[in-house]
Formats: sequence, C-alpha cells, structure tokens
Amino acid sequence: MSLTDPAELTARLVRCPSVTPEDAGALTVLSELLSDAGFEVFEVSRGGIRNIFARWGAKGANRTLGFNGHTDVVPVGNPDDWTHDPFGAEIHDGHIYGRGTVDMKSGVAAFAAAAVDFVRDTPPEGAVVLAITGDEEGESIDGTCALLDWMADNGETMQACIVGEPSCPETFGEMIKIGRRGALTAWFTVTGVQGHSAYPHKALNPMPAMARLMDRLATHELDTGTDHFDPSTLAIVTIDTGNPANNVIPAQTTGCVNIRFSDLHTGASLERWLTEEAAKIDAEFGTTTEVRFRLSGESFLTPPGDLSDLVGKAVEAETGISPVLSTTGGTSDARFVKDHCPVVEFGLVGQRMHAVDERVPVEQVQQLKAVYTRILREYFA
Amino acid sequence: MSLTDPAELTARLVRCPSVTPEDAGALTVLSELLSDAGFEVFEVSRGGIRNIFARWGAKGANRTLGFNGHTDVVPVGNPDDWTHDPFGAEIHDGHIYGRGTVDMKSGVAAFAAAAVDFVRDTPPEGAVVLAITGDEEGESIDGTCALLDWMADNGETMQACIVGEPSCPETFGEMIKIGRRGALTAWFTVTGVQGHSAYPHKALNPMPAMARLMDRLATHELDTGTDHFDPSTLAIVTIDTGNPANNVIPAQTTGCVNIRFSDLHTGASLERWLTEEAAKIDAEFGTTTEVRFRLSGESFLTPPGDLSDLVGKAVEAETGISPVLSTTGGTSDARFVKDHCPVVEFGLVGQRMHAVDERVPVEQVQQLKAVYTRILREYFA
Repeated sequence: MSLTDPAELTARLVRCPSVTPEDAGALTVLSELLSDAGFEVFEVSRGGIRNIFARWGAKGANRTLGFNGHTDVVPVGNPDDWTHDPFGAEIHDGHIYGRGTVDMKSGVAAFAAAAVDFVRDTPPEGAVVLAITGDEEGESIDGTCALLDWMADNGETMQACIVGEPSCPETFGEMIKIGRRGALTAWFTVTGVQGHSAYPHKALNPMPAMARLMDRLATHELDTGTDHFDPSTLAIVTIDTGNPANNVIPAQTTGCVNIRFSDLHTGASLERWLTEEAAKIDAEFGTTTEVRFRLSGESFLTPPGDLSDLVGKAVEAETGISPVLSTTGGTSDARFVKDHCPVVEFGLVGQRMHAVDERVPVEQVQQLKAVYTRILREYFA
Repeated sequence: MSLTDPAELTARLVRCPSVTPEDAGALTVLSELLSDAGFEVFEVSRGGIRNIFARWGAKGANRTLGFNGHTDVVPVGNPDDWTHDPFGAEIHDGHIYGRGTVDMKSGVAAFAAAAVDFVRDTPPEGAVVLAITGDEEGESIDGTCALLDWMADNGETMQACIVGEPSCPETFGEMIKIGRRGALTAWFTVTGVQGHSAYPHKALNPMPAMARLMDRLATHELDTGTDHFDPSTLAIVTIDTGNPANNVIPAQTTGCVNIRFSDLHTGASLERWLTEEAAKIDAEFGTTTEVRFRLSGESFLTPPGDLSDLVGKAVEAETGISPVLSTTGGTSDARFVKDHCPVVEFGLVGQRMHAVDERVPVEQVQQLKAVYTRILREYFA
C-alpha cells in the first residue's frame, strides 16, 4: 500500500476532519509525502490558515507546471444523515465515502500522487509546483491569495497551472474550465416617505419604484453570449420590506440582484449601468435609491491554446472523451491564479459536492491521477 | 356643575382609563346619567366587552333617531411623553387634555348631554336611542356589531343614525362623512423553483414574476372617482422574500397590496380582478401564485338626502360653515350601522386622534353639543 495510490491518499486526507479553517493534519500528510519525494516544502500560513507550497526542481525554472487545490472542506451537516462516517473514508460499492472525497481531496491526492511518481520515474527538465491551501471554502482571503503573494515575494513562478477542482457536470472527462464568468451583487435601497395606505397621495411609496426597477433589470438582455461565455444572467435574489402593517405605506425597501457576466462586461461597466437604472427610477418616481455593490470577481478567460490543448488531449487519451472548453460555474481559486499565469481547471464530476454521502468512485480517482500524469509527461516532453 | 355640561362629562369619562377592552367605569357614568334622565338602559356585553344601549321613548317608534359612539381608547404610549396626565382631564389654555378627548369621549359626552337635555326640555314624539360601545379601537367584533345584533334580536330600531366620530380634517364644521371607501388587502405568494444564481435556467425565479405583478397592479387605474368618492387607490405595502444568500434564487416570495375602493367596485369584483392578474403572471412566468384576501369593509354610501341635509343645516347654523359631504378616511363603525339604517358621521376635528397630548378645545365640545341638540330638535320638529 502506497500513498501514491491516489485512492489511499484520498482516504488518508478524508480521515483528517479539515473543516475550514481547521487543517486537522491534512497538509501534514501531503507535506511529508512531498518532502520524502524530494520536493522543497514551505509552510505559508496567514490569518491562522495553513497552506503549503511545494516545488520539485529549480526555482524560476523556464518550464514550471503548477497544480492548485485545497484540503479544507465544508461542514458535514447532520452526521446522522450520512450512511457512512463522513470522516471515515469507508469504501462501499466501489466508492470512497466522506466529506471532501469530491471537493476536492481526491483532486489534491491525484495531482500529488502523479507529481511524486512522475519526478521519481522521469525527472523532468524544469520544475513541478504544488500550491495547496486550507482556505478555499471559507473567505478565500488567506488561502491561494496568500500562496500567490508569498510566491511573488520569494521569486517563485509557474508558467501554467491546473486547478484540480471538480470540473465535469455529469461524466468524467467531459469538461475543462478555461475561465469563469464574473460575479457582481448589487443591493438597492429605495427610500420614499411613509404614510397611511388610505392616503397614498400624502406618502411616497418606494414599492412601485422597486417593482419597476426590478422588472426592468430582470428583462434587460445583458448579452447573448460570446465564443467562450454563456449569455450573462441577472437574478433578482430578494426584495425585503418588513412592513407588517397593511394600512401603512413603508418608507423604505431593499432589493438585491446577482449578476454572472461574460467578458463583454466588467464590474465597473455593470455598476455604471445599475447606477443609471436606479437614477432613472428616481427621476420617474421621486424616490431616493442607494446602490451598494460587491464584486466577487471579474470574468476571465485563458483563451484556448497550448494549455487547454495539452489538458484536452490528456483527458481524451485517458477517458476517450473529447472535453468541451467551458466558462460555466461558480467561482474558484482560478480567479486568483489567472493573474499569475495561464490556468485551466480539470477534475472530477462535481455532482456530489457539498452533499450528504459525498462519495467518489475509486476508479475515477485512478483515472484522474492518470490524466494528471499524462499532462506532466506531455508538458515536459 | 352638571353632567349635561359636555366638557364636564368629557372630563368624567377621560378620568376612566378605558383602554380597550377595559371599561374602567366609563359606561357606568353614562348609564347612570341616562337612567336618571328617563332612558331605559340595557347592558349588552359580549366576549368580555361592555356596551350599553339606551332608549328614551317607545321601542319601535316611527321616528327614532340614534347616536353611536365608543368610550374605549387607544393606549397612551409612554406617559412621560405627555405634558399632562393622559387620564387627568386637566384643562389648560382652554383645552381638555387626555386620551380620548378627541377620539371620542367628547363626541359621546356631547350627544349624551344633548339627548338628556332635549328629552327633558322638549319631550319628542318618537324615540332617541344611544348605542355606545367599548370595542371600537380593538377588534370591533363585540362592540357596535354586538349592539346591532342585540337590537335586531330585541325589536329595537333606528330610522337614522349619527356616528359621533371626529369627522373634520382641520376646521370644526367643515365635513360630514356620508360613507366610506371599501378596504381590501391581498397577499400574493409567488412560488417558483429554488436554484443557484449562477444557473438561473435550472431554477424558476419567482422574483421577476412578483416585480411584474406589482408593477402592473400599481400602475392600473381602478377608476377616476365618482360623485361622492375619491379615485380608488392601491398601495403595495410590502414585498418580502427573506433570502439572505445572494448565490441562491429563492423558491418563494410574498407581496401585499391594500386597496381603498369607491362604489364602482366591490370586494368580490376586486378579488376577481386580482386573481386574474395573478393567473396572467403565472401563465407568463410559469410560477404558481396563491392569493389570500381580507375584506375590511365594502364601500358604502348614504346618498345625500334628508339625513345629510338635516345634519348639514345644523352644522351650518351653529358654526357658520357649510360642511362638505365626504367619503374619505379610514373605517369606522358606520360600516356596521349602514346595514341597519341611513347613517352619517359628524364630530370634532380629528387631527390629535391617537397622538401624545391629545386634547380638545372646551369651546368645540360645547359647539358639538349645540349641533347635536339642533339635529335632535329639527329631526323631531
């Protein structure tokens, strides 16, 4: 039994209950494995979060391939809802059960195992870098960001990076992520003048203004998509007023929209548009609307090219499936890595992420290691 | 000093802290006064609420004029905010201070004092009836309704009735209420399918449906008013979703509208319209909308005629002001009385109702008694 068996390594990691921000020994397992294999391993802790940076080969080598992933997991919820111990890594019907088996201890295990075997069997000309964080499921402030900051401070580089997050919707091998849509949340607070429902002319009801604003935003077509992006979407996520009295016209109401946007927009262009729409409503209704924004991330794209070709061919060779290049999905740490070097994401089928009885087929973990191994081999060929 | 001095009687009533449902002796003061004056007085209690029915003259007399009012009051709030004891009935600068001085112990005192003096000085051919409740500010279930039920059960009738509620917006004498708009509240619960904000096509967001529905309802012109009614109004009073997660599309949202309607509508016609609008939205958006209604009261009107002429002339004779006939304002117990006989409302200036330092000019209370006395005299002339 060896820790470069990715199923065995996954099991070892799952048995560490590393719910963010706890590490619970998970990174120690990896740190020891990588040190023993000749990697230089650095502890990069920030804000009470543990992260590790590991490099095999020379710092700043011309060809340096990086892998990024996380060992922290989301909480298990009610453990009684699970049919197997969520930190037991029990194998049943060919699946490893446990929190993090999909998201993403298997991914980390697969690339770590692949890297260790690869540098031992066919030492490359160049360097292999693993940047593994314990803060992806949390605020993500002291995780991959901290690793990238530390790398910049210490002259550590990557020429390309694979993020090992689950990337396939239903079938292993079907999708590589080459970017992500941006995400912007906007909160609108519309203020009028409180009054009695029987005398609306003496009040200024903010509710019709809110209804009109939200109707306009929801029906506006942001775009019809681009070569690599689905059409941008806007979802009204909530409107809240909290007025319990049906004979009172409220003074204020709040609404929130969440936008996922293609590369035809930026956070700034959308903030401008939303601010203008609010101003139009105020001009029409006489209300006063304040808008507050939170930009979770700009849209980004690693245009199809060497890196996506490399990964796509490796996936096809190992799975027989030609993966599509996609920018769908939520955010991931690739949004930080993209400022450093070209980045793509390839990993498991994500369906059971964050769910009760999270589990991964042992065979899929083996295949994933094989894909990563092939990527390493071809990159340094 | 006499209890048919309406200021003195008001003061006696104000000193009884009759916050609904407490009577605190207020109706006893009236009951004794009326009994002593030759009225038959009946206690009509229901649901723990005390009410009295008093009649001078023969039951079922051809000409029977009724007065309706209440002795219960709303709470005082923080007594420290008052410059005078809210149950002290202190007189300062020509005003009686205290909770209920406007709404509406002065009104009850004025018509009770007028009735007692009138039947003693000029005994009429017919009957004078006073229906006084202790449940107008509360649920109004066991108040005037209980009195009217009891009257029907006991063969007691009125040919016409004056409700002594404050009826004047700013100047004493300026307004008689001859009806009221109806009031209907509707709650819409729009249900879709929850989902992730990043994948709106996999969810069915109820929010755009709610925004469109509310926009349509708010911009629909119900009518432009009638001879005796202001235009009907619809106020959106609240929309609430309670979704704290901006990456989640909610499954459900609730909105509430409050309609005040003229005699061009009924509760049933409006419920039909609102139900149809919800169905249209569901057809457009694929949502499921449930509508719940509460009809506070139908619109009603005592068309201008003998009763409003009688009251109008009495007001003009005593105040020099020709009152307008109006249907503005919130609900009052006239909405129950109207099923029994023609009813109009005339009383004080209502501005200080329910406010801190509620107070009434002594002179206005005297004038109000004079108006009621003249109404009695002319009715039985």
